[in-house]
Amino acid sequence: MSAQAGGDQSRGVPHVIIVGAGFGGVSAAQALARAPVRVTVMDRSNHHLFQPLLYQVATASLGPADIATPVRQLLGRQRNAIVALVEVTGVDPDRREVSYTSADGRAQTTAYDYLVLATGVEQSYFGHDEYARFAPGLKSLTDATTIRSRGLTALEIAELEPDPSKHRDLLTFVLVGAGPTGCEMAGAIAEALRGPFRAEFRRVDPGSARIILVEGEPRILMSFSESLARRAHDRLTSKGVEIRTGARVEHVDADGVIVAGERISSRHVLWTAGVKPSPAGRWLRAETDHAGRVRVQPDLTVAGRPEVFVVGDTSCLEHDGRPLPGVAQVALQQGRYAGRVIEGRLAGAAAPAPFRYFDKGNMAVIGRGFAILESGRIKLSGLPAWLAWAVIHLAFLPAAGNRFSVFTQWAWSYVTAQQQSRLILERGSPKATEPPDQKR
Amino acid sequence: MSAQAGGDQSRGVPHVIIVGAGFGGVSAAQALARAPVRVTVMDRSNHHLFQPLLYQVATASLGPADIATPVRQLLGRQRNAIVALVEVTGVDPDRREVSYTSADGRAQTTAYDYLVLATGVEQSYFGHDEYARFAPGLKSLTDATTIRSRGLTALEIAELEPDPSKHRDLLTFVLVGAGPTGCEMAGAIAEALRGPFRAEFRRVDPGSARIILVEGEPRILMSFSESLARRAHDRLTSKGVEIRTGARVEHVDADGVIVAGERISSRHVLWTAGVKPSPAGRWLRAETDHAGRVRVQPDLTVAGRPEVFVVGDTSCLEHDGRPLPGVAQVALQQGRYAGRVIEGRLAGAAAPAPFRYFDKGNMAVIGRGFAILESGRIKLSGLPAWLAWAVIHLAFLPAAGNRFSVFTQWAWSYVTAQQQSRLILERGSPKATEPPDQKR
Repeated sequence: MSAQAGGDQSRGVPHVIIVGAGFGGVSAAQALARAPVRVTVMDRSNHHLFQPLLYQVATASLGPADIATPVRQLLGRQRNAIVALVEVTGVDPDRREVSYTSADGRAQTTAYDYLVLATGVEQSYFGHDEYARFAPGLKSLTDATTIRSRGLTALEIAELEPDPSKHRDLLTFVLVGAGPTGCEMAGAIAEALRGPFRAEFRRVDPGSARIILVEGEPRILMSFSESLARRAHDRLTSKGVEIRTGARVEHVDADGVIVAGERISSRHVLWTAGVKPSPAGRWLRAETDHAGRVRVQPDLTVAGRPEVFVVGDTSCLEHDGRPLPGVAQVALQQGRYAGRVIEGRLAGAAAPAPFRYFDKGNMAVIGRGFAILESGRIKLSGLPAWLAWAVIHLAFLPAAGNRFSVFTQWAWSYVTAQQQSRLILERGSPKATEPPDQKR
Repeated sequence: MSAQAGGDQSRGVPHVIIVGAGFGGVSAAQALARAPVRVTVMDRSNHHLFQPLLYQVATASLGPADIATPVRQLLGRQRNAIVALVEVTGVDPDRREVSYTSADGRAQTTAYDYLVLATGVEQSYFGHDEYARFAPGLKSLTDATTIRSRGLTALEIAELEPDPSKHRDLLTFVLVGAGPTGCEMAGAIAEALRGPFRAEFRRVDPGSARIILVEGEPRILMSFSESLARRAHDRLTSKGVEIRTGARVEHVDADGVIVAGERISSRHVLWTAGVKPSPAGRWLRAETDHAGRVRVQPDLTVAGRPEVFVVGDTSCLEHDGRPLPGVAQVALQQGRYAGRVIEGRLAGAAAPAPFRYFDKGNMAVIGRGFAILESGRIKLSGLPAWLAWAVIHLAFLPAAGNRFSVFTQWAWSYVTAQQQSRLILERGSPKATEPPDQKR
């Protein structure tokens, strides 16, 4: 066993490797704070990302650091934990080893006694990976700042374009998928473009932008009740968002999309239609569901591998006959559960009670001052739901510094209606829809 | 004449093109707010950068958006101005045309009646441009976030490196040039590494890092009086910064530097030793000084071209027998002066009085709570100077939103001593000193 990523002083103490420092991984590590183990948390980025507010970075309301917390800040002071900035490349479940590449490019392996895989999901293009270059998803800070730069650059190009007929595709935004992320993005884009910074342009009116939300299902926000989804629909429409439900995107290219047979020219296609799990299932050679998520036992372990837990979006567990949704709360609760099971086993406790998800509810926000919220029998919409949304999101931000900076940024933009992070940091590429590393 | 970057409605009104939206360009545009002209401000980035605080982005204390303001936010509401995100590629002073590439890659030209070049400086390696890949300067937000990522990544690599002898070059920082930027960076790096986040590492002690400040002159901070420079020197030394004065850097490569014959292994060499002007002098085919700065007349115009002004760091004007320093105040005052001269000429005023620089003084900060300040006969150091520094910098930030966010970030980190922007956004490259686009 290599010592690279394990603790030094505590040989002989069981080694828990946690892969992924999202909601599931961090909560598993924290649940083990007092357990007689040494914990190694591996992630390829140095920060834990508060995904629920990522759309606000993409729309220039918040800066990247507001919603990202160094993993080391969250876990570095936990005496039995070590944080490793490495990219995990595989797992050998028979030899109980994780292989990874460290930030200086060296390939290494480390043995574990317990393994928690919390490796999340990435965007799925349903077999059309070629769409990715034209229609980015919204999963990482880099995705968010790229989307922000492209949108701002398009406005700058339109401002210098004397032919108003050419403004149209520069200012047509197509969002594929009307789940919470798609709806939140659509509302935030509408608000940003129809806000006070219109007065700063001469030739182009950012407020004239078309924002089109496309959804294959018969209505938006399928995870909410129909009445609440209706309210969100009306709110989006009143902000000028065009909603096309029951409409499938048939093609995506550099010039736009084809939706239900109609071509829509657009330089800004954003893909929030689907996700695919991390390669955790392949690493483990474990049973997966149709999407590739690892089927786990009621105690979140993999069949036949009681030392391997899979938590969060990359796992699949049926709960009252339905698979659990891929949301932060599930990952948080599963991570904590896995940590406690490990601690219990080491203490010689009896087999744990199966994991139970406590569903605290579901929220989506449509612009400033409007949200929908569903929790048990409670259904709220409008300002009260938005206030609840704001308080809950502030409370769940992982560090006091994040709460402070998000709160002060929100307060400032509430008063001034200014967006605070309108930066183009990447050099504006000629074709706004192509990633900078692609050749045209 | 192409209409691309000029105003539409106001043909026949004199057209002023301002190239560069730094301190000089923005103040020139603002001085023309009530003049009967149309103004086009061209810059290749969409933001005005508050350079004096850039070192705080490089050391993770502030985020990029805190010190960057969209040019459009500063000037977009000025009715006679248009903001153009373009890269200027040349000037034809005989035809009175500026050529540029727009963000969608099209090459264009636009005619001017008056031209203000405020194109600043870039890092100079004194004929050794090959050093640039190993020793970045600190001029743009991208420079700052790259330096931040490399420093944070080195700590992460060291944390996973079991051989402590290898920690040394990962944690040796060499700053070439002990002007204000070099000294401010050295102080800020020392404070960041010796601060509370040491407790978050297990194997490596960030506080053990070597920080070496190299200066060819016999003392640091040559632009300050000897007594103040001495105090800054003592302060830096007490923070553990090694200062080598009268020592020249003879070579820079991937493994470090050679200083006065001695090789110092380092993955973090930062170059703040010199600047070279923008190509403004070449564009104009005008007389330049030895460094390449455009020699201007007492009214800041170029000899024989009364319609062309050159302001700020890229111009050279003798003042009481000495060339003016390349500082923000000179650029600000020169930009304002150029705007007023143009307005005066259009109003048929007599020849203007020559430009006079009002020297408000000179400041440098060494970590939290200590600065030196020199203004006329006033010499201050320590906390009073630091308070003056903080108030003056807040006051000079260009927009209320920047003042608010810098103030709240400072207040937060004053209370918690946490750095708020410890993000690695670029993928950590194996060799921390090589830019990501270089092949190893």
